[in-house]
Amino acid sequence: MGKLLRQGDHVVGIDIGGTKIMAAVLNHRFEIMGRCRKKTRSKKEGQSTEERIFDVVAGALDEAGNPEIKGIGVGSPGPLDPATGVIIDTPNLNWKDFPLGEALGRRFGVPVAVDNDVNVGTYGEWCFGDVSDCADVLGVFPGTGIGGGVIVGGKLLHGFSGAAGEVGHMTIEVDGPYCGCGKRGCLEALASRIAIAKEVAALAARGDAPYIAENFGTDIANIRSGALAKAIEAGDAMVEDVVRRAAYYVGIAVANLINVLSPEAVVLGGGLVEAMESLFIEEATRAITDHAMPFLRKNVRLVPAKLGDDAVVLGAARMIAEKLAEQ
Amino acid sequence: MGKLLRQGDHVVGIDIGGTKIMAAVLNHRFEIMGRCRKKTRSKKEGQSTEERIFDVVAGALDEAGNPEIKGIGVGSPGPLDPATGVIIDTPNLNWKDFPLGEALGRRFGVPVAVDNDVNVGTYGEWCFGDVSDCADVLGVFPGTGIGGGVIVGGKLLHGFSGAAGEVGHMTIEVDGPYCGCGKRGCLEALASRIAIAKEVAALAARGDAPYIAENFGTDIANIRSGALAKAIEAGDAMVEDVVRRAAYYVGIAVANLINVLSPEAVVLGGGLVEAMESLFIEEATRAITDHAMPFLRKNVRLVPAKLGDDAVVLGAARMIAEKLAEQ
Repeated sequence: MGKLLRQGDHVVGIDIGGTKIMAAVLNHRFEIMGRCRKKTRSKKEGQSTEERIFDVVAGALDEAGNPEIKGIGVGSPGPLDPATGVIIDTPNLNWKDFPLGEALGRRFGVPVAVDNDVNVGTYGEWCFGDVSDCADVLGVFPGTGIGGGVIVGGKLLHGFSGAAGEVGHMTIEVDGPYCGCGKRGCLEALASRIAIAKEVAALAARGDAPYIAENFGTDIANIRSGALAKAIEAGDAMVEDVVRRAAYYVGIAVANLINVLSPEAVVLGGGLVEAMESLFIEEATRAITDHAMPFLRKNVRLVPAKLGDDAVVLGAARMIAEKLAEQ
Repeated sequence: MGKLLRQGDHVVGIDIGGTKIMAAVLNHRFEIMGRCRKKTRSKKEGQSTEERIFDVVAGALDEAGNPEIKGIGVGSPGPLDPATGVIIDTPNLNWKDFPLGEALGRRFGVPVAVDNDVNVGTYGEWCFGDVSDCADVLGVFPGTGIGGGVIVGGKLLHGFSGAAGEVGHMTIEVDGPYCGCGKRGCLEALASRIAIAKEVAALAARGDAPYIAENFGTDIANIRSGALAKAIEAGDAMVEDVVRRAAYYVGIAVANLINVLSPEAVVLGGGLVEAMESLFIEEATRAITDHAMPFLRKNVRLVPAKLGDDAVVLGAARMIAEKLAEQ
């Protein structure tokens, strides 16, 4: 791995999210030498998202002692074109056909690689997590939404559109609940943090989730992964039921993809899994046993993600390092 | 394509099915020079399936004028190990851990390549059909069962187990009807010829499918793809409803895989599609529009398979030709 970069080389990894932007400066061993994190929405009037990103990168470089950098890797919400670094449409960042890769390259004078944030996170977990010995890996990340990424034969799967891996928008219940994408019955509409919070808020309103009602109320914005974990620990049995059901749905989606992709390992990450790891692994395992073909599920490793919030910056750094090594 | 084999070279492709075995001898341009087809179950007492296969190959060689052959490619029901040519478990052929590749190699004295029949058929459609210019292709084949195959970056996807592509056993309705695999709600339990015939037999029994009742009765063994096509043509409206619903389910599975794999083309084949092509393409297109993400489904080509019964022998011949060229 050290061979990708030469001693003294540094690269930057950037994780662009709807609520926060993080950048990290990494040395040739992919150790984080400096980092900076800011809310995506700036308080400075008129500051564009790209200027905000430049600020965050500058902050990380400052913390690392301003080393010369060789390149920048970026994980960004999609859809985007990894070949050109153009963000095609991300309404909550106000980007439409925005050449993010070009903008960063011009500002910092180095090559830039841009890819979908969840794909980059999957790639990070694959390169630096517990599954780097597996050539075929599926990553599913249930949090506020549900993202996914696929490694086939040691390579991140992009597909024809460049945007493969939308595990969260597989239809799991044909006439199921409405999804943010406009469809119905998507995994994300059944098992994301928002989908769970919606059910739990109703439980709380009816008096069936006393710990949630007392400590977090009935506003789904406040019923976050940590709140759910605490409520389960405090004995809110129906909250546990709702979360287990969601985790089982995640497992059905994983089982479907085990049947089709036959991965060697499945990485489960995201806010929900970080907050309730054993519950998610348990229910997903149960669903995989119920819904995946015995021959295909045999010896498949189901592992929790281990990089947490650093998955995207690490994956992005590795991605640009590989691009540089190819050139 | 002609470069894989030299002028004068011949290879054999074999398609092993539960009801019939077909072998074809192909020249260096992959033109079929001789073929032979027999029922899988022999009338000769005590003849094993492998002896039956040897007979079929000998028959095809005879028809081609007994040229020297360079290798044999085989598509067989799985699960099997493509690396070793061992059939792991195929109850209806009486094979358990059977070294089919080795047996054929010993009998004919040439290299052998063995792979899953549906994967080989997908590969044939990819190499010789209408989608050979697409690097990422999904094949789904609804017939008596439902098989699938995936081409990623110009290569057949095998995955960790070697048996990737079990599209028919994706769960589409969580508590849906029982499937032959022992699970519930698989695509195959909702949309295969057997699943359709089961519903149509009940319609016929109740007087709701008069053409079927009069011409084919209520035995699902007789309600085959051609019978369904004729009944729809004759105006059995509820039969058409049932078939359209099944085709829509196939489209949901395709849509889910468009979201995850982002193929450039989807090939629909199998007995049901061959008998009712426009209906299947129409309903699958509707389901893809309803269930695939707009950015991922954009410009995806949905095409009917064109090789029919020859897909597996052609794919198998190409597979062994490539293996020979690599050596």
